[in-house]
Amino acid sequence: MGLVVQKYGGTSVANIEKIENVARKVIKAKNEGNDVVVVLSAMAGETDRLIKLAQQAAEDYDTREYDNLISTGEQVTISLLSLVLNRLGYPARSFLGFQVRILTDQDYTQARILGVEDQVLRKELEKGKIAVVAGFQGVDSDNNITTLGRGGSDTSAVALAAALSADVCEIYTDVDGVYTTDPNICSNARLLNKISYDEMLEMARAGAKVLQPRSVELAKKFEVPVYVKSSFSDEGGTLVTKEDKDMEREVVSGVTYDRDQAKITVVRVPDKAGVAARLFTPLAEHNIVVDMIIQNASLEGYTDLTFTISKKDVKETKRLIEEVAKEVGAAKVEVDDQVAKVSIIGVGMISHSGVAAKMFSTLAQEGINIMMISTSEIKISCVIHSKYTELAVMVLHDAFELEKSS
Amino acid sequence: MGLVVQKYGGTSVANIEKIENVARKVIKAKNEGNDVVVVLSAMAGETDRLIKLAQQAAEDYDTREYDNLISTGEQVTISLLSLVLNRLGYPARSFLGFQVRILTDQDYTQARILGVEDQVLRKELEKGKIAVVAGFQGVDSDNNITTLGRGGSDTSAVALAAALSADVCEIYTDVDGVYTTDPNICSNARLLNKISYDEMLEMARAGAKVLQPRSVELAKKFEVPVYVKSSFSDEGGTLVTKEDKDMEREVVSGVTYDRDQAKITVVRVPDKAGVAARLFTPLAEHNIVVDMIIQNASLEGYTDLTFTISKKDVKETKRLIEEVAKEVGAAKVEVDDQVAKVSIIGVGMISHSGVAAKMFSTLAQEGINIMMISTSEIKISCVIHSKYTELAVMVLHDAFELEKSS
Repeated sequence: MGLVVQKYGGTSVANIEKIENVARKVIKAKNEGNDVVVVLSAMAGETDRLIKLAQQAAEDYDTREYDNLISTGEQVTISLLSLVLNRLGYPARSFLGFQVRILTDQDYTQARILGVEDQVLRKELEKGKIAVVAGFQGVDSDNNITTLGRGGSDTSAVALAAALSADVCEIYTDVDGVYTTDPNICSNARLLNKISYDEMLEMARAGAKVLQPRSVELAKKFEVPVYVKSSFSDEGGTLVTKEDKDMEREVVSGVTYDRDQAKITVVRVPDKAGVAARLFTPLAEHNIVVDMIIQNASLEGYTDLTFTISKKDVKETKRLIEEVAKEVGAAKVEVDDQVAKVSIIGVGMISHSGVAAKMFSTLAQEGINIMMISTSEIKISCVIHSKYTELAVMVLHDAFELEKSS
Repeated sequence: MGLVVQKYGGTSVANIEKIENVARKVIKAKNEGNDVVVVLSAMAGETDRLIKLAQQAAEDYDTREYDNLISTGEQVTISLLSLVLNRLGYPARSFLGFQVRILTDQDYTQARILGVEDQVLRKELEKGKIAVVAGFQGVDSDNNITTLGRGGSDTSAVALAAALSADVCEIYTDVDGVYTTDPNICSNARLLNKISYDEMLEMARAGAKVLQPRSVELAKKFEVPVYVKSSFSDEGGTLVTKEDKDMEREVVSGVTYDRDQAKITVVRVPDKAGVAARLFTPLAEHNIVVDMIIQNASLEGYTDLTFTISKKDVKETKRLIEEVAKEVGAAKVEVDDQVAKVSIIGVGMISHSGVAAKMFSTLAQEGINIMMISTSEIKISCVIHSKYTELAVMVLHDAFELEKSS
């Protein structure tokens, strides 16, 4: 007995048959005495179809119109699930972002949720109805439709769970939880029963595709328990929750990788105050997300500056950086898009020494050269040549004995 | 120089290439110094695809969810046209029903427009932008999405033209105007340069598919000049406007037919007060539209009552009517769905006698039996066996010499 928010991804609502499967899971939760709010993505492939249409219409597209277009996919699935639930005798009602009202900023294609009103949904829940809400979309203060970026439906679900003080937010997907690493690469990858918000956040940021990083940030902020499970099986499942004593025993919880990386090096930058700001300000203005940044020790008043970005931003970044590089008197700009980032993550790192050394030596033993290193309290990331990605993941998973439950 | 509302149908926006064709027409009107508001339908076939999905989800569907689903088609086309216009350097902005705000009643699937707010659009027009509005949809006072029924985008366009006091409402379609009859049946059908609101209304109601009847009602009420023309050619076009002297010269302006007819006869109904009301009230309650109603002279306290409905309503009507027939003591209910309605329309009928007689004798000469007759000031309709539809249209078109311009 409580309030449950359930989110289903694109493969779970890919056709009417699968939507009927979702309806059965929703009805089960309802019959167990819960109020149920369902958040849906678009049918698998539909958002890509719409994006292709947008690109056909205009290569450099107007982002407001783009969002208006690609938000239709979720409108279709929420209507269909509501039709099915009503047919099965479970009163349901669909809600779009503007109807709930999920208020966002005006940063089209990657808007951030500013607030979620709960009155409209509470009224329906009080009537015993199931509320089916469009994921991925919101509305700005001028009533324009906005979208939240890839994986945004996760964030919609967590934001709704937070606004409604839900007991749990269940994220149904096509995998049965969070693994120590990608099971497609490591056959002995182990399903985690529990993981802390911080670890999940680092894993999501470091390339694990289970949850959108923002959704984990929100879940942590509002302490929403998030349960990641499979739409197609009742087994497994991973609870993302507050850190507890059990977790601290594990030094490393997971190994992740991200192939969507490109490395830019600005060679021989005069080492003067304000140079870094001049290099990175234009990138920020163009919404280019810079991941790792490394600056070598200065030598005779010059330094090399290296940073990583998403592969899709290479062209624009090169153009912007070459311009500034010229102005500040740097020698040249080098681009390498044959790179990947491999990371190990674990809250236990804080209290265990030697984790980084073990990572570096494990990679070295395989002859894998480390190009860049970045660390946080609970994560160590290395940029390596992309051809070594799978190898690095496998040897690190073995080295930290992740196949064994602690 | 003025304000033009242009509406494009589904075949005009069936793909990006055709949407670019629409963009060129819109830009032409803009470059001629006009403020332009564009109203679009969904891509040809898209609404049918969505209806099929709804039917797969639930045979007896919840109409609110149905409307939420099928209104997505227009959201796609308005976004795409706006993307194309922006790309071509003509600032454009798309608007959904709730954004404009096109307020309707809550009669889902066939909602009526109650009011159109003009401020949001005027603000955009004042900035020099082109406003691209989703046809077919509105929003009720509780923010639920509603749709206006088949052909509803015509009504959206006329309602916007009325609210904005537009100089003209141009309806672009796949035919080049309004003809004296269906050119697919009569090769000598003639394009009308001008037609009165009343004639157009009768023609639309009598089966001509060029405009939704409600759109003509609205145009008449607010005296919006409506210009029907082809998306694919600059030739032709028919102006629907107030009656003028020219028009009165024509006795008959057009011949229409409607094959979507079924005839129901309640045999030997006791001729008592209130019986007709008891028969038709349940139909009204189930939103079944009754077209023609005929009651024979009473014989020994009994009468036969015959009426026509749309073919899609036969099953439900039969069930409802058989129930009441039993209660009021009628002998039986007969259904005939092999019927069609053929009509002649013209404002000149008012001042010309002998038009009806000529229609009946023309049909009689071909051996076509007339089952039912109904007349209005400017229209005469006959229900005949459906196998004679084409023949009837051809001989009537010839008899009234419609191929000749008066």
